[in-house]
Amino acid sequence: MTEYVLPVHANALGTVFGGQILAWMDLCAAICAQRYASSVGVTAGIDDLSFEGPIHVGQVVRLEARVTAAFRTSLEIFVDVTGEDATTGRTWPCVSGYLTFVSQKDGKPSRVPQLISETDDEKADVEAANERRRMRLARRAPASRGG
Amino acid sequence: MTEYVLPVHANALGTVFGGQILAWMDLCAAICAQRYASSVGVTAGIDDLSFEGPIHVGQVVRLEARVTAAFRTSLEIFVDVTGEDATTGRTWPCVSGYLTFVSQKDGKPSRVPQLISETDDEKADVEAANERRRMRLARRAPASRGG
Amino acid sequence: MTEYVLPVHANALGTVFGGQILAWMDLCAAICAQRYASSVGVTAGIDDLSFEGPIHVGQVVRLEARVTAAFRTSLEIFVDVTGEDATTGRTWPCVSGYLTFVSQKDGKPSRVPQLISETDDEKADVEAANERRRMRLARRAPASRGG
Amino acid sequence: MTEYVLPVHANALGTVFGGQILAWMDLCAAICAQRYASSVGVTAGIDDLSFEGPIHVGQVVRLEARVTAAFRTSLEIFVDVTGEDATTGRTWPCVSGYLTFVSQKDGKPSRVPQLISETDDEKADVEAANERRRMRLARRAPASRGG
Amino acid sequence: MTEYVLPVHANALGTVFGGQILAWMDLCAAICAQRYASSVGVTAGIDDLSFEGPIHVGQVVRLEARVTAAFRTSLEIFVDVTGEDATTGRTWPCVSGYLTFVSQKDGKPSRVPQLISETDDEKADVEAANERRRMRLARRAPASRGG
Amino acid sequence: MTEYVLPVHANALGTVFGGQILAWMDLCAAICAQRYASSVGVTAGIDDLSFEGPIHVGQVVRLEARVTAAFRTSLEIFVDVTGEDATTGRTWPCVSGYLTFVSQKDGKPSRVPQLISETDDEKADVEAANERRRMRLARRAPASRGG
Repeated sequence: MTEYVLPVHANALGTVFGGQILAWMDLCAAICAQRYASSVGVTAGIDDLSFEGPIHVGQVVRLEARVTAAFRTSLEIFVDVTGEDATTGRTWPCVSGYLTFVSQKDGKPSRVPQLISETDDEKADVEAANERRRMRLARRAPASRGG
Repeated sequence: MTEYVLPVHANALGTVFGGQILAWMDLCAAICAQRYASSVGVTAGIDDLSFEGPIHVGQVVRLEARVTAAFRTSLEIFVDVTGEDATTGRTWPCVSGYLTFVSQKDGKPSRVPQLISETDDEKADVEAANERRRMRLARRAPASRGG
Repeated sequence: MTEYVLPVHANALGTVFGGQILAWMDLCAAICAQRYASSVGVTAGIDDLSFEGPIHVGQVVRLEARVTAAFRTSLEIFVDVTGEDATTGRTWPCVSGYLTFVSQKDGKPSRVPQLISETDDEKADVEAANERRRMRLARRAPASRGG
Repeated sequence: MTEYVLPVHANALGTVFGGQILAWMDLCAAICAQRYASSVGVTAGIDDLSFEGPIHVGQVVRLEARVTAAFRTSLEIFVDVTGEDATTGRTWPCVSGYLTFVSQKDGKPSRVPQLISETDDEKADVEAANERRRMRLARRAPASRGG
Repeated sequence: MTEYVLPVHANALGTVFGGQILAWMDLCAAICAQRYASSVGVTAGIDDLSFEGPIHVGQVVRLEARVTAAFRTSLEIFVDVTGEDATTGRTWPCVSGYLTFVSQKDGKPSRVPQLISETDDEKADVEAANERRRMRLARRAPASRGG
Repeated sequence: MTEYVLPVHANALGTVFGGQILAWMDLCAAICAQRYASSVGVTAGIDDLSFEGPIHVGQVVRLEARVTAAFRTSLEIFVDVTGEDATTGRTWPCVSGYLTFVSQKDGKPSRVPQLISETDDEKADVEAANERRRMRLARRAPASRGG
């Protein structure tokens, strides 16, 4: 997914405002989730993100998403956002992170296909995803009790 | 901050799409940061979030933000998003979480005023914020190396 | 209701264009009407307004609405719009005025709850609202015949 | 000025929301003011309006504006909004009213050309506009003191 | 159809981006097609266009459309786009071209009324439209096989 | 470039309106032109297009652009638009065509790098592009004289 930064996306400083990037990440992950699970995905959560270089009006935002884990009815999607100055070819990291989506059919959570892992690397990836999920569930429990 | 959900904010299911809520949270926190620090704040990060009840077209989104910690040149802002059916008065939690902003003047990070804590409760809050910051920095280090 | 002025809201002079403020006033009043009457409100009219200080990109628009009168199936809502420079804390009046909404259920006008007035001040408010309504109906009769 | 009503302009009932129509009226009057005065016009006020028939998604909004009076540095513009079902050719009145604009050059009010009136009808129009201006100034004085 | 160019329509150079003009041409032609055929028209194609003078933020875009040919279930619409600086009254050609629409009822192509041509000029117009249609069909055949 | 079709992009029939697709094609080609020429490209023209299958809310729009010819200061870009139902994986052609961009530096046309063609196929491509350019120039001459 590629977006050209127009004035409509910018804040008063002439850079894309953070919320617009979050909105694009969500859309990009939603398409990825829908392709994988053959169902509509509803955003369930987002892991903590850290913004690096800003992106200005007239530059390009590149987003890439891929499924990193499939649980019973939910998916973990990694989204990587890169800034690009199309005039010079320079690119720089903007932000990246994990979003989780719940697969839905007729308004109810629905099963998603398993991710197949064969090599040792893939098995390590799955283990890392499971670890993130444990931390996520642990963090979210107190977080939901609020400020 | 209060938003009325119009068709323009909705996905194909008639509910606000997650990215739109993230965009509003960012704006709401940005105003809060700007008021506290008397400077423009640039979104530096967002802690992990978990979406609860969806909000439909014709319903109302309520956002409340407050500064929960002030570091040297950055702020932690807690944003709480509530759905409201203005016709029935029913409200429900939608999502809440912590955003961090870097205060900027003339394109450089600028000092922000200290948060004063006097009571034991306030001191505990500060301690909790410091703990979140430690976890955030710890988590972000490996996260920036990506998927 | 609070809005952060982005380039998308501005005219060629870098200030919020009047029509955008009118659009926000209408939304803000609509939420207020819906909360009071537990029904969807359709904009029936707007009293004459006078714009004072402009609001620029990067500043904040604050809108406050309250029900000032309840007639059989319609409400009068007062909306006050204030500009705010969140960096300096300065605020200034932008525009204020009365909007009227017709309460609707299933596409038909529906009864709205009475406003209770007990003190002398509240009774004076009701009298003032009735007087505005008389003037409004008187003015609108010829106005609808156009230029 | 003609607008085709898309879902983006509609409220939850599938009709153009009042604030959107107000925004279009302001733009249409602004173009008219700019053409007449050869300068940028800033919305100074709007007389009271009364909405008649709603306009639905898929229908057409027609706006017509004309200068009805020219004062020293300000203009009164009459805007008439008509709904149209382009499929059947049916049209209906939606709303109409007077907006006032202050002509600006380099951020300051600037003189506008006089409207020439020759016939008795034109002179009666001018008299009516002056009367509206007197009522406007009278009404606005207390209105600016708010609710 | 008249549009006032706001920052939201502009690219990083402060001029309306070509795609926005194309979007307005499509809407303007769609209204024209709907009025002529008393049915909803679906964009079937657009002849080649050449952009001339750019239009800047704060200037005005004027669009005029008229039916130039009616085939069995489709229409050819000519749209002419003119830039206008409302402050000086200067106008300039921006772009013009032919769009074709298929008339639809209940999701199926539906017959459109014949264009009546009586004078020799009108008959020449019809002949020219038929010639464009032949060229269009001829060009589109290989074009659809792509790059 | 990939876009998820939201209600904001749709017409009253729930499909992306033609003008929105044209706007995306223009953006997609603009990014491609900017990358190739290391300069900002201004849309100079668009060859005739023919819309095939419609794309609905909740489906995905895929756009691919590539440079097909480089002239002295202008580029020809081929853009191919495909509809995708991400739930089923089904894809279908939507529209495709050639856009031309003029490369600009400091407001003046600037030279663009030559496209290198080595194989016979590449040379045939160049010949085809030159032929399209001849037809384009021929067609545009009378077209600019309008209806």
